[in-house]
Amino acid sequence: MTEPTRIPERSGTAFLLPAGALLEVIDPKGVQVADLLAFNADDVGEAISSGRTFDYAETIYLTTGHLLYSNRSRPMLEIVADDVGRHDFLLTPCSADTFRHFYPDQPVHRGCFGNLAAALAPHGITEDMIPSAFNCFMNVPVDGETGKLRVLPPISKAGDKIVFRAAMDLIIGLTACSAFDSNGGSFKPIDYRIVSSENVESN
Amino acid sequence: MTEPTRIPERSGTAFLLPAGALLEVIDPKGVQVADLLAFNADDVGEAISSGRTFDYAETIYLTTGHLLYSNRSRPMLEIVADDVGRHDFLLTPCSADTFRHFYPDQPVHRGCFGNLAAALAPHGITEDMIPSAFNCFMNVPVDGETGKLRVLPPISKAGDKIVFRAAMDLIIGLTACSAFDSNGGSFKPIDYRIVSSENVESN
Repeated sequence: MTEPTRIPERSGTAFLLPAGALLEVIDPKGVQVADLLAFNADDVGEAISSGRTFDYAETIYLTTGHLLYSNRSRPMLEIVADDVGRHDFLLTPCSADTFRHFYPDQPVHRGCFGNLAAALAPHGITEDMIPSAFNCFMNVPVDGETGKLRVLPPISKAGDKIVFRAAMDLIIGLTACSAFDSNGGSFKPIDYRIVSSENVESN
Repeated sequence: MTEPTRIPERSGTAFLLPAGALLEVIDPKGVQVADLLAFNADDVGEAISSGRTFDYAETIYLTTGHLLYSNRSRPMLEIVADDVGRHDFLLTPCSADTFRHFYPDQPVHRGCFGNLAAALAPHGITEDMIPSAFNCFMNVPVDGETGKLRVLPPISKAGDKIVFRAAMDLIIGLTACSAFDSNGGSFKPIDYRIVSSENVESN
């Protein structure tokens, strides 16, 4: 099996994920978050949609067996394995604005939003086209009575991963989280690996 | 005070809401839902964002005093009064696709999504630019343990309303819900009234 690719701390990348291929997102050191976006590679107006996914899944907590839908109600990704079982699909990627809001005493960072926008720009995806991300390993419990949410450190351990199968040719945006609260106050890398559909059976 | 404007059952409309004006959304008969969208009237790439709103409000249940933010982290609407206290910002407007999924034995309807798309098209807003809506009076409790959500009949009574103040010049999309589950199996109108900023003080 090929070695995974490393996304350095507080950075992001974008790449093509062909239909049928698997994407492994790995937390190599534990307690880190990776924001994931997906766009139809043939028409980037079609994007991953938290709202459509909640509609169809009838839950806000997504894990193995769930499909992540596009704004056009088509499956984009299926979660086929999940070591962690706790991810967030409510919140948007942190940006310079959210840094100023939540961390007024810290240096401003462009955040996962800025990292995603930069990585996706060559694919014709503009800032306004960036929706809420699927935030792998992000731990955001919701109080069902009050609706209040909290951003807690991820429960992921070193080497834990979540694996997606692409339902169409996709452009993926993926980050190693830049925010303080999301990862327990530390900044760490994220690894990912693409397993092509020809090799899926043997894995 | 001017009479409210009526949105007939299973339809939608769009209109300009100037900065400072109030928008009253009224459930005239009770137990009905109104999907609300907002776009910056000067640049429709800026749209209401559930994810950014959840970021800043730190709750999924929005009511009096909460701000609804855009994808560019700017306040678009403030909730200034709320007779009901239970609305949904998780789910996307129902569409022909969701009707086929949830109501396979019923005639397909274009839903609030189709009604919003038609009403907003003259303003240069395309289907792919439609995000998750703020669903006034929609009752979607979430189980904090499992994440499972349910679509229950609204708790709104005849004449109940929610009132928003515009923080910028906005194009508003607003519907009277078309789906079966959201409104307890009935289809009813929604009323709305705009109170201009010159008249706000006297109300």
